[in-house]
Amino acid sequence: MDEADLLAAAQERQAQVDAVLERFFTLAIRRAEPLGDRYTSLWRVLESNTRGGKRFRPRMVMSAYLALGGRDTEAAACVGAAFELLHTALIVHDDVIDHDFVRRGVPNISGTFRDEAATRGADERLAEHFGTSAAVIAGDLALFNSYRLIDRSGVSDVVRSRLLEVMDEALFASAAGELIDVDFAVDGGVPRVDDILTMERLKTAVYSFECPLQAGAILAGASEQTVTTLADFGRDIGIAYQIVDDVLGVFGSESMTGKTTVGDLREGKRTVLIAYARSTREWAEIAPLLGKPDLDGAEAEHVRALLDGCGARAFAEGLARYYGNRGLARLAEPHIPSALREELHPVADAVLRRVR
Amino acid sequence: MDEADLLAAAQERQAQVDAVLERFFTLAIRRAEPLGDRYTSLWRVLESNTRGGKRFRPRMVMSAYLALGGRDTEAAACVGAAFELLHTALIVHDDVIDHDFVRRGVPNISGTFRDEAATRGADERLAEHFGTSAAVIAGDLALFNSYRLIDRSGVSDVVRSRLLEVMDEALFASAAGELIDVDFAVDGGVPRVDDILTMERLKTAVYSFECPLQAGAILAGASEQTVTTLADFGRDIGIAYQIVDDVLGVFGSESMTGKTTVGDLREGKRTVLIAYARSTREWAEIAPLLGKPDLDGAEAEHVRALLDGCGARAFAEGLARYYGNRGLARLAEPHIPSALREELHPVADAVLRRVR
Repeated sequence: MDEADLLAAAQERQAQVDAVLERFFTLAIRRAEPLGDRYTSLWRVLESNTRGGKRFRPRMVMSAYLALGGRDTEAAACVGAAFELLHTALIVHDDVIDHDFVRRGVPNISGTFRDEAATRGADERLAEHFGTSAAVIAGDLALFNSYRLIDRSGVSDVVRSRLLEVMDEALFASAAGELIDVDFAVDGGVPRVDDILTMERLKTAVYSFECPLQAGAILAGASEQTVTTLADFGRDIGIAYQIVDDVLGVFGSESMTGKTTVGDLREGKRTVLIAYARSTREWAEIAPLLGKPDLDGAEAEHVRALLDGCGARAFAEGLARYYGNRGLARLAEPHIPSALREELHPVADAVLRRVR
Repeated sequence: MDEADLLAAAQERQAQVDAVLERFFTLAIRRAEPLGDRYTSLWRVLESNTRGGKRFRPRMVMSAYLALGGRDTEAAACVGAAFELLHTALIVHDDVIDHDFVRRGVPNISGTFRDEAATRGADERLAEHFGTSAAVIAGDLALFNSYRLIDRSGVSDVVRSRLLEVMDEALFASAAGELIDVDFAVDGGVPRVDDILTMERLKTAVYSFECPLQAGAILAGASEQTVTTLADFGRDIGIAYQIVDDVLGVFGSESMTGKTTVGDLREGKRTVLIAYARSTREWAEIAPLLGKPDLDGAEAEHVRALLDGCGARAFAEGLARYYGNRGLARLAEPHIPSALREELHPVADAVLRRVR
C-alpha cells in the first residue's frame, strides 16, 4: 500500500471507532433526558471531551487486530472505543486531581461546568466546586462504561473475559502510576531515573500501548506468545514515548507539541531529564529555577542550556532510543507475522522520529 | 422462625458477603504489592472503608434472592458484594465532592492519606491534595471492580448481562441524583418538594433499594412481573427511608442516627422539611437560621420548634408513611410469594418505625 492508501485505511478505522462512540453517546444522552437538562448536558460535554482525541488507543487495538488477520472490524472498533472511553475517564479524573479547569487551551469538564455555574451567579468557590463535582461524576460514568463497551462488543465469552482482564490491568496499573506521581510531590525530592520510568510506564504506557495492543491480539485469536510479545513491544515503545514527551515538553516547539514548553519547567515536573540532572554539577544552578511559577523566557532558555550542557538531554534521548530499539527488536522475533511487523514499525518510527 | 433464628440467618448471610469482599481485597492487595507500599496501603484503606458498613445493599440482594427460592448463596453473596463496592465507590467520591476528610468521626480515605502526607512534612494544601487524589483513585478502583464482581459471580451469560444492566442503571441514576444535588447549591433557592424527592430517589434510593432487590430477583430467576414489583417496592421504601433520614437528621437523637442533629441545619441541607417550610409563614424566621455555620444549640432548638409548628415535620412524616404504605401494598399483590412478603415486611416496618 502506498501512503495515500495507508491514510485512507487509517481514516476508515477511525471513522468506525467514532461511529461506535457516537452511537453510545446518542443512547446515553437520550436516556439522560428524562433525568434533567443538567444531566443531559453533562453527557454532551463528556461526549465532546471524548471527541477531541487522536484515537491513539483504538488505533493500537485495530492495528494489532487487523494485522493479525482479524476481520470483525465492528468488534475491534468497539474494543477500541472502550479504551478511548477509559482514556477519557482517566484524563477527566486526572484534571480533578490536578485542579485543572482547562486542557489544551479549552475548558475541560470542570471548566465548562464552573463557567456555567458562574454565569448563573455562583461565586468562584461554589462555581469551582460545581465544576469539580461534575468532572468526578462524568469520569465515573466514562470509567464504568468503558467496561460496558467491552461487554457489548458481542465477542465470545472466553474472549470477553480475557479482554476484561486486560482492561482491569489497564486501570490497576494506571491507578498505581497516578498515586506514585502525586506521591512524588509529597516526597518533595527528585526521584531516581528508574522510579520516574516506573511511574510513567504505570500511569500512561500500560493503558495506552501495552493493553490496547494485547486486546487487539486477543480479539484476533493470536497465540499466547504473540500476545506477550506485543505487550512487551507496547511497554518498550510506551516508555520511549513518555521519555520523548518529557524531552519535547522542555525542548520541543509549541507548534509540534501543542503546549507551551515553559509549562513543565514552571511546574517542576519530575522527568528523566530532571532525575539525570540531579546527579550533575549543573544541578545547583538548575534546582532554584525548577518549579518557579513565574519563570520567564530567558530563565527557561538558561535551564534548557544547562539541561543540554549537563548531558541530561542526550541521556534522555539515548534512553528513548534504547527503549524504542528494544521494542523494534521484539517485532523481529520469528513468531511475529510480517504483516504485524509492517503495521507496527511505523508506530515505533513515529516515536523515535520525535527525537533528533 | 423466631427472632434468634432470624438473627442467626442474617449474620450467616452477612458473613458470606464479608468473605467475598475479603477474598477480593486479599487478592487485590497481593497484586498491588509489587507496585509499591503506597498503592498497597491504598488498597488496605479501601478495604477498611468497605468494612465499616451495615451491608444494607447485600442484605437486599440476598433477601430477595433467598425468599424467591434461590439456593446458590455464593453467587448471591458475590452480587451483594458488588453492590457494597459500588456503595463504597459512590461514598468515597461523594466525600471528594463535598471536600470531606472525615466520615462518622473517623478519617475517610482523603483524611487518612492527608494525615499521612502531613506526617511526612507536607504542608496543609499539599497534604489535602494528596488525600483527595488518593480518594479519586480509590473510588475509581472500587467502581470498576464492582462491575468485575458481577462478572466473576459465575452466573450464566443471560443473567450476568441482566445484572450488569441493573448495575448500570444504579450508577446512571446515582450520577444524575448527585448532579442535581450539587446543582441545588448553585441555584441557591429552596427546591420544591418533588424536586427533592426526585434527587433523593436518584442519588440513593435507586442503587440502595431498587437495584439490589431487582438483582436478587433476577438472580433467582423470578418472573418479569415479580422483578418489576420488587423494583417498585424498593423505590417506594427507598424514598420513605430518605425522608425519614432527613427528619431524623433534624429531630432524631444522636445515639439513634450516629450523627449530630445540628449538622443538617448548619449545612442548610435541602430536605422535604425545608421545602415544605418554605411555603409557610414561619419561613421568614427559619430562613436566616438555616445554613448558619455557627448555629448554636438554642437556635437549633428554635428551628426545630418552628419546623414542628409550621407543620413541616408532620408533613414529612406523613409523606414517609405514605410511601412506606404504598410499598407495603405492592407486596400484597397476588403474584408475590408469601415467603418474599414475610422477608420484606420487616424492611418496610423498620423504615416506618423510625417515624413516631
